[in-house]
Amino acid sequence: MSIADNVNQKDLAEFKARVEKEPVSSFLGMELVELSPGYARVNMKMRPEYLTFNGYIYGGIVVCAADQAFACAVNSGGRTSIATQFNIHFIAGPGPDDVLTAECRVVRKGRRVDVAEMTVTNQDGKLIATATGTAIPIS
Amino acid sequence: MSIADNVNQKDLAEFKARVEKEPVSSFLGMELVELSPGYARVNMKMRPEYLTFNGYIYGGIVVCAADQAFACAVNSGGRTSIATQFNIHFIAGPGPDDVLTAECRVVRKGRRVDVAEMTVTNQDGKLIATATGTAIPIS
Amino acid sequence: MSIADNVNQKDLAEFKARVEKEPVSSFLGMELVELSPGYARVNMKMRPEYLTFNGYIYGGIVVCAADQAFACAVNSGGRTSIATQFNIHFIAGPGPDDVLTAECRVVRKGRRVDVAEMTVTNQDGKLIATATGTAIPIS
Amino acid sequence: MSIADNVNQKDLAEFKARVEKEPVSSFLGMELVELSPGYARVNMKMRPEYLTFNGYIYGGIVVCAADQAFACAVNSGGRTSIATQFNIHFIAGPGPDDVLTAECRVVRKGRRVDVAEMTVTNQDGKLIATATGTAIPIS
Repeated sequence: MSIADNVNQKDLAEFKARVEKEPVSSFLGMELVELSPGYARVNMKMRPEYLTFNGYIYGGIVVCAADQAFACAVNSGGRTSIATQFNIHFIAGPGPDDVLTAECRVVRKGRRVDVAEMTVTNQDGKLIATATGTAIPIS
Repeated sequence: MSIADNVNQKDLAEFKARVEKEPVSSFLGMELVELSPGYARVNMKMRPEYLTFNGYIYGGIVVCAADQAFACAVNSGGRTSIATQFNIHFIAGPGPDDVLTAECRVVRKGRRVDVAEMTVTNQDGKLIATATGTAIPIS
Repeated sequence: MSIADNVNQKDLAEFKARVEKEPVSSFLGMELVELSPGYARVNMKMRPEYLTFNGYIYGGIVVCAADQAFACAVNSGGRTSIATQFNIHFIAGPGPDDVLTAECRVVRKGRRVDVAEMTVTNQDGKLIATATGTAIPIS
Repeated sequence: MSIADNVNQKDLAEFKARVEKEPVSSFLGMELVELSPGYARVNMKMRPEYLTFNGYIYGGIVVCAADQAFACAVNSGGRTSIATQFNIHFIAGPGPDDVLTAECRVVRKGRRVDVAEMTVTNQDGKLIATATGTAIPIS
């Protein structure tokens, strides 16, 4: 991969360390468990605080899991990209004790625009959501 | 409005009370400040916990504000609807001390599907995001 | 408007003339009826050729109307932009003899990304579809 | 697959025959080349009529290819579904002589909602677009 050629393991490790220290990862319990150029996987344990008036896990929380994988994947290639658009399909509601896994793959890494695909599954491999997004490189 | 005809103020007040007691509203500091059939407005104060590795407010947090207005608006018409799809365009990053206002209007309330439009602005009226979504009535 | 400051009427007229001569406008019967910086309106008459196996107007045809307004609006500001993402909600099916009107407004014209909103209505003002899109300036 | 259990080959052949006779397929040169429950593949030859003022293939034409695969896949399961939402990412512009192949897979076939994923590639396997959509069963 040409992307990988330009990103060394030291850069990835440094980026991962920055993510681990960011406030929102701690606040929402999102853990970046795998990172390579153009790919990221994030785990997120559901909590009672995430429940809605209907007794379901809040959809915005599922988005947070996917969005974190998205942000990490598009920023894993040695440049900074900002999300500009994000579309999600909610397939199944997570259980209240689920551990979600969000994966993101960059399908187009262009000079002016990145396009990425995400899935969110639970600990049993059940599909919870599928999403896509657009990011813009700014450096 | 034909929607309004079928929803009385008592139902709206009861629904609002349920939202106020839900865990995720407290957890994320989302306040439902206005509700009428097919419309909802939600305020959400930004917090240091919402910052990312880049020092920006996390995009998923902006989604949470919009998604809450969406959930309230589509459930304000006397039946229960579940979000199945959500698309957002991030227009400008919120400042770290901003108070976001998310508004949602249902543009189509059908027998089988609802379509809604959302905006997120800050305390100065600056446009932060624009979004649309699909919800499915289940009762 | 700062956009308008940089675009003179001669440029707009020249751009409109280019659109009028393009092959796909003739092929699909799309007429650019109004153009100003960041705004475009396109009319499109439905035809028997656009019907599907269900006897409805093909959804892709409704998209074409919206996409043409989108392309014209984002290219009306004196620079060239390419659509990179497009999301549409189909609200009501057009009648077989309808004349559709697609309108597009650019809601964010940035250095690196444009975001636009579209509506498609019929000759009675009935809402047929609502859409949003992302375009990238390349010049 | 439970979907397949309820759809016999005769139903699929009848549905395919209906699609082959529909006006819009002929008009746009879209050919349904493979159909099974929850899956469809459509070929579409590019033509000079599809070019825009920029000399590119019109984005709405790429959407038509994807939308046709979408319509066929969600209607291949023995019931009628109507598209309600469609999101596409344009990855690369087709060449003027390309033959596009649009594939659609239904990832969720629910009682109230279908979610599908599409890709559009050219004759060399190059990715032209990736899309997702929501459809609502009406029978």
